[in-house]
Amino acid sequence: MIENLKKYAVEIIGTFFLMFTVASAVLSGVAGPFAPIAIGFALMIMVYAGGHISGGHYNPAVSLAAAIRGALEWKQILPYWIAQAIGAALATLIVVQFTGPSQAVAEPTSIMALVVGEFLFTFALCYVVLQVATSKKTEGNSYYGLAIGATVTVGALAVGGFLCPAAFNPAVALGLDIMGGVTCKTACIIAAANLIAGACAALTYKFVDAE
Amino acid sequence: MIENLKKYAVEIIGTFFLMFTVASAVLSGVAGPFAPIAIGFALMIMVYAGGHISGGHYNPAVSLAAAIRGALEWKQILPYWIAQAIGAALATLIVVQFTGPSQAVAEPTSIMALVVGEFLFTFALCYVVLQVATSKKTEGNSYYGLAIGATVTVGALAVGGFLCPAAFNPAVALGLDIMGGVTCKTACIIAAANLIAGACAALTYKFVDAE
Amino acid sequence: MIENLKKYAVEIIGTFFLMFTVASAVLSGVAGPFAPIAIGFALMIMVYAGGHISGGHYNPAVSLAAAIRGALEWKQILPYWIAQAIGAALATLIVVQFTGPSQAVAEPTSIMALVVGEFLFTFALCYVVLQVATSKKTEGNSYYGLAIGATVTVGALAVGGFLCPAAFNPAVALGLDIMGGVTCKTACIIAAANLIAGACAALTYKFVDAE
Amino acid sequence: MIENLKKYAVEIIGTFFLMFTVASAVLSGVAGPFAPIAIGFALMIMVYAGGHISGGHYNPAVSLAAAIRGALEWKQILPYWIAQAIGAALATLIVVQFTGPSQAVAEPTSIMALVVGEFLFTFALCYVVLQVATSKKTEGNSYYGLAIGATVTVGALAVGGFLCPAAFNPAVALGLDIMGGVTCKTACIIAAANLIAGACAALTYKFVDAE
Repeated sequence: MIENLKKYAVEIIGTFFLMFTVASAVLSGVAGPFAPIAIGFALMIMVYAGGHISGGHYNPAVSLAAAIRGALEWKQILPYWIAQAIGAALATLIVVQFTGPSQAVAEPTSIMALVVGEFLFTFALCYVVLQVATSKKTEGNSYYGLAIGATVTVGALAVGGFLCPAAFNPAVALGLDIMGGVTCKTACIIAAANLIAGACAALTYKFVDAE
Repeated sequence: MIENLKKYAVEIIGTFFLMFTVASAVLSGVAGPFAPIAIGFALMIMVYAGGHISGGHYNPAVSLAAAIRGALEWKQILPYWIAQAIGAALATLIVVQFTGPSQAVAEPTSIMALVVGEFLFTFALCYVVLQVATSKKTEGNSYYGLAIGATVTVGALAVGGFLCPAAFNPAVALGLDIMGGVTCKTACIIAAANLIAGACAALTYKFVDAE
Repeated sequence: MIENLKKYAVEIIGTFFLMFTVASAVLSGVAGPFAPIAIGFALMIMVYAGGHISGGHYNPAVSLAAAIRGALEWKQILPYWIAQAIGAALATLIVVQFTGPSQAVAEPTSIMALVVGEFLFTFALCYVVLQVATSKKTEGNSYYGLAIGATVTVGALAVGGFLCPAAFNPAVALGLDIMGGVTCKTACIIAAANLIAGACAALTYKFVDAE
Repeated sequence: MIENLKKYAVEIIGTFFLMFTVASAVLSGVAGPFAPIAIGFALMIMVYAGGHISGGHYNPAVSLAAAIRGALEWKQILPYWIAQAIGAALATLIVVQFTGPSQAVAEPTSIMALVVGEFLFTFALCYVVLQVATSKKTEGNSYYGLAIGATVTVGALAVGGFLCPAAFNPAVALGLDIMGGVTCKTACIIAAANLIAGACAALTYKFVDAE
């Protein structure tokens, strides 16, 4: 039980700092064009800090992919998702205290663009996570956090503001909705695309990395 | 056979995300001056994700260099090239659906500049790949993806938009041609310069790293 | 005794280059929007250069966190703090010789914002340091400097110029005060928030990483 | 003899690509504000590619520091310096073919600023190199190239265009002189400051890392 609480605490802390960085980038704007670097690095540092305790998911889609791949017990999915939602909500509420809510709702140019953008790079993120952090062939490496964080940076630079808000993470979609940056409907579509992408990435991983 | 299909799938996925990032940078422009970072990181994450399965080439010039060095069976060259071409073409076609084709063809200032720029940094890329990912003396390191990805970032910052389009990769040249960013002739010159550079890098490697 | 002098020398050198980079960013402005990258990298390189000798703290809040966690002897706290103060003061004085003192005092928008910003990311910094550089579960890794340096980059991009001056380090607060960039009162509030954050991070670490 | 030729070839190749990136940044300007990233990454990739063969110095000041520390035979100093000069000169001459020589000579604001800036960060560079690439306590790490390359990035962002041209390397000073970017006198002062810094760093290393 205590062991589980440690994991949830680590997931709350990691998702908190990831979402705090996203929320500040969106609402305060001080990161400017460096926002994709800031957000990718935020994920990287928290993966390195907590990966050995909770797996360092900070993302319900990653937790789903890990469960399908057999790297997370299925009964842990729900508490992980709750911990991630708590971390993201808390971070957003703190940032909003200082900035006020979002001035403009980022409406996607089309549902198709939204789904394609969120699907593709959440797929890339979960595929990278499973390969670098759960494969026996890459065990003991020191690059997993860099690879995982950089995937979000690449995704934000490739499709953010072009196809979609570049959440790649249902907990981040929740935060974006709380701050008023996306509508609830858009957040739900993002979350669904993210989860489906996580599942697809897990199946792809099971094919290409099977022993 | 199944083992080979895994490798080709990994090469398709990796080249897809590399080219998707390049195509978005060229056609959507949202990466702005961070495009060289985005593209280098895209290669890095896919090298870390797939290197232990397919070698993580995502580049026909790298596959040629690997074959000359003895790190890839010669009979795998053609299927690797086909997988890389499929990944790059698919990514370009998807991006073009959302942006339309390139508005302007990037004509090189001179054939000499084009050849020198593409040759030099494809040589650097293949030289780095062979040293960090195939040398016995560097076995088990965790920096190979960082070194390989960063080489493309350096090349794009050093010669991209100065001497050449900074493809350093015949599959990327194919993608640039599909999107209408370069003429077919330019793409062929790029691909030839890339392949010759890969061969020269392999011979250089065989001299300096011989046992 | 000689062993201790080596550690203090390493702490002076590391804090010197960290603060030199901060002072140049504030006073010369040549780093421009790349200042958070420069400062994070400065910490990273000095952590990698000196971590195996002194622990590579360069920050009184980190030394406090390390002492609470049991990774630094309590009697070393004071000499470490003195070494860090010397390094930061020296660097600031040299930069000021070439630029003159700060033209404008950066007054925080509110004490609450100042405390929240400095607390949160100093907590993140000390949490990351303890996890990646003192946990048995991550021993022998090669990413500790990257994770630690990148945390300062993330913090500077997330709250610097939004909530606070992003010192995350009482020695840096001293340097900012010497150059005339913050008032003495602000520097003291920053230092207090940093030290409390270091203590909280150590307690959090002891809970989540206990064996 | 053949073993030595391999080392010199690696030093020529590495210094060539380092200087090519510097020369393109100065003369073509396409790297823009990303020049410090490009140059640091160029050094990083070449250190990772050639470190296991030649030590990956690409810098006469680093070779001097390595010799004083006992990591390079004294009789190798001269051939290393010649190889580094050849690589830097060749790269500069190629870039100049496409851009013409420098339009403006970067005169230092003062000799004092020039010496302080070049001394400090060449000291940092050689100190980092000796700690991460020659110390027994850090043997087998995967971060050496990142730490070494990032030191040049930090230095360029901290003092480049503020105190000095940020060469930190007599071979780069030679290249800057060939392209007409600095006067011969300035290049000589830079080279002298670099070499003295390398010697000081080696002595510092021998004190703090002694067994």
